[in-house]
Amino acid sequence: MIGRGAVGRAVWPVTRPEEATTLGPPMPLLVQKFGGTSVGSVERIREVAKRVVGAQRHGNQLVVVVSAMAGETDRLLALAREVARTPDERERDVLLATGEQVTVALLAMAIRDLGASAISFLGHQISVATDSAFGKARIRRVDAAPVLRVLNDGHIVIAAGFQGVDRDGNITTLGRGGSDTTAVALAAALGAARCEIYTDVEGVFTSDPRLCPRARKLERISYDEMLELASLGAKVLQTRAVEFAKRYQVPLEVRSSFSTQEGTAVVAEDRNMEEVVVAGVTHDQDQAKITVFGVPDRPGLAARIFGPIARANIVVDMIIQTASADGKTGLSFTVHRSDYDKALGLVRGMAGEIGSAGVTGETGIAKVSIVGLGMRSHAGVAARMFEELSREGINIQMITTSEIKISIAIDAKYTELAVRVLHDAFVDAESPEADRS
Amino acid sequence: MIGRGAVGRAVWPVTRPEEATTLGPPMPLLVQKFGGTSVGSVERIREVAKRVVGAQRHGNQLVVVVSAMAGETDRLLALAREVARTPDERERDVLLATGEQVTVALLAMAIRDLGASAISFLGHQISVATDSAFGKARIRRVDAAPVLRVLNDGHIVIAAGFQGVDRDGNITTLGRGGSDTTAVALAAALGAARCEIYTDVEGVFTSDPRLCPRARKLERISYDEMLELASLGAKVLQTRAVEFAKRYQVPLEVRSSFSTQEGTAVVAEDRNMEEVVVAGVTHDQDQAKITVFGVPDRPGLAARIFGPIARANIVVDMIIQTASADGKTGLSFTVHRSDYDKALGLVRGMAGEIGSAGVTGETGIAKVSIVGLGMRSHAGVAARMFEELSREGINIQMITTSEIKISIAIDAKYTELAVRVLHDAFVDAESPEADRS
Repeated sequence: MIGRGAVGRAVWPVTRPEEATTLGPPMPLLVQKFGGTSVGSVERIREVAKRVVGAQRHGNQLVVVVSAMAGETDRLLALAREVARTPDERERDVLLATGEQVTVALLAMAIRDLGASAISFLGHQISVATDSAFGKARIRRVDAAPVLRVLNDGHIVIAAGFQGVDRDGNITTLGRGGSDTTAVALAAALGAARCEIYTDVEGVFTSDPRLCPRARKLERISYDEMLELASLGAKVLQTRAVEFAKRYQVPLEVRSSFSTQEGTAVVAEDRNMEEVVVAGVTHDQDQAKITVFGVPDRPGLAARIFGPIARANIVVDMIIQTASADGKTGLSFTVHRSDYDKALGLVRGMAGEIGSAGVTGETGIAKVSIVGLGMRSHAGVAARMFEELSREGINIQMITTSEIKISIAIDAKYTELAVRVLHDAFVDAESPEADRS
Repeated sequence: MIGRGAVGRAVWPVTRPEEATTLGPPMPLLVQKFGGTSVGSVERIREVAKRVVGAQRHGNQLVVVVSAMAGETDRLLALAREVARTPDERERDVLLATGEQVTVALLAMAIRDLGASAISFLGHQISVATDSAFGKARIRRVDAAPVLRVLNDGHIVIAAGFQGVDRDGNITTLGRGGSDTTAVALAAALGAARCEIYTDVEGVFTSDPRLCPRARKLERISYDEMLELASLGAKVLQTRAVEFAKRYQVPLEVRSSFSTQEGTAVVAEDRNMEEVVVAGVTHDQDQAKITVFGVPDRPGLAARIFGPIARANIVVDMIIQTASADGKTGLSFTVHRSDYDKALGLVRGMAGEIGSAGVTGETGIAKVSIVGLGMRSHAGVAARMFEELSREGINIQMITTSEIKISIAIDAKYTELAVRVLHDAFVDAESPEADRS
């Protein structure tokens, strides 16, 4: 809308220019990303500053990507909802982008206070060029040149995660967890040796330890498995971040910002990994289901329903179409809880047009999944999964599968039970190789 | 430092292009500025939104400049001081700029909630191009073209005050009260019909009503008088804002955001104004004094002292040099309290080099001034001022004068007494024309 014209000279991906290595062997470039809890207070920001300066003194070039301080994004969203019934999406991004802006400034100050030199960069300064889907923008290009210049002058770069700029100069945000994507995209654009994701957990676990006491930390996991885990609701890493990492082969490490323990390496797969059938069991309780029933069974029905939903930038997850009877059919699908009202409104709006007898919706749906490279070579995993759940009287509402995962939708009240049963049956039952150590 | 190259196509000042007036008479363009108290809460932001939408419905184009919500800048500064002993100035500006960013987004949302259309602009989006003096940057150019485009599409423009962008793409801030300057600079660049400064007082008063119960609101005041008042500590308008307004003949109005009463118009002077000798009495209690004594009296002394101070971007206000005796001289000057430590450090650092016998400093200094166009044509005003103060036993430490004002530095504890005595003697004693009605 602002119309400042194109954003700089955009290069994506770039390999590191030769000038970066002037004398002696090049210094390894690390991208470190710290989430909201890791920078949740002034004390924690000072701890992060110490860790970053330590890594520089060990001979690394450092690019540090940070999120908003824990709670800040929610505080800002609450202000937005107080001021307007339906906050404008463009302005909500302008508002939310201040969260990371505060953190980069404070962290750069804290690092300078320790005698090192740091310079902050906002999304439009890097620049992280995105499309214009406010609230869930996708990165199109990263122009790493300004960052490289500053790195080669010996500074630590502190980059605001989560935010970008569209072609017209509008501020955009990448959606919850978008800082991971910023970190990986920067690591790819800069040709970083590694991208370290610091968070409040020790790494990637075989399941959520709060639900499943026998869950344990994985030392290594493949991009594909991590991708399934991320997209299935394991809140450790954002899906798009893992996609980027896989596409540009960026070695990732998920680790805790509160300890010095090794975390979980997310890397390209190797032969040993296939020996483990199920690497992890995940769940996502923030699902909602919408059902359209009694629709005349004509070709193009799905397109007519999902076209408007896709245009509204709503991600549809599981879909089932019921068998046709008397020339009528039905269709159920799940969306994230936060998109439920919007999706339901859209579908209700088109109910008359498609001749539907009715539209129903329900929240309180959970998705539970098992993920593992080994599924590709081990038959009967699905059958065994359904059997385990059936034995506990858990009704399966929907099923989707991929090469390396099986997901089911169930009533959210059974989430914990389902996760434990599947972890016991698949993960705990496996041999010590499950640890992949 | 970031080196993104020049900032857009910069035009300063611009007259409004012909395209702005398509059909019928052009709509008057108003710039309205709301300070921190006026947008200090969600409720107040919604009140401002109503006022702005009302003004648009009365047939005006609207550019609204806002400050950070009251208290926000102090909250951010406190965070900065917690995280670093001496917060880096570049990063402090990155941090502080979030204050206005939050307000523009919330106000734009609130306006949209009322059914009108508003788009927010940050300093770098407008763009407000400044020099690189972080914390007290000066505006060099305003590129009003993006704002005009959005106005002509029927939107209300919400612009972040106080912030700009330097040649290298770094965020800068204009210093306390800088939003006034943003508003006037935008009004000048856009050729606005008027720039309205909404604040928490009813207008410009003959003195501070808290100190001087007989102070009353002025209906009109000249740019020059306002300039002296602003620079002398009347906190209604920032000096640079008035300078801009005078240079580009922008009609200003200072008024309350909590009432619909007319405020004070700040306009070019006319003949009637000279009939009033003293328009107002002001005070500033945030002064500090530094004295260098026992210095060998050689040419270039002042330059050697004030050169480094100017380079540190510290504004020196009153200066007196004592008469030379035995080849030794001394020099006293005042600075703002916030620059005192820095200035004292600089002067102490050069004491040896200039051969000074010592440097002393004291805070707790107040400046009291009388201002009026009429001083130009009325003799003996200074003598009468000194006489009034002497009668109350107030010791005058320094004196400076301009064509239309006389300022004295005194011990801060006498501020209130001095203001009342001078208001009684000069303002109250004048005929009803003083009201300039």
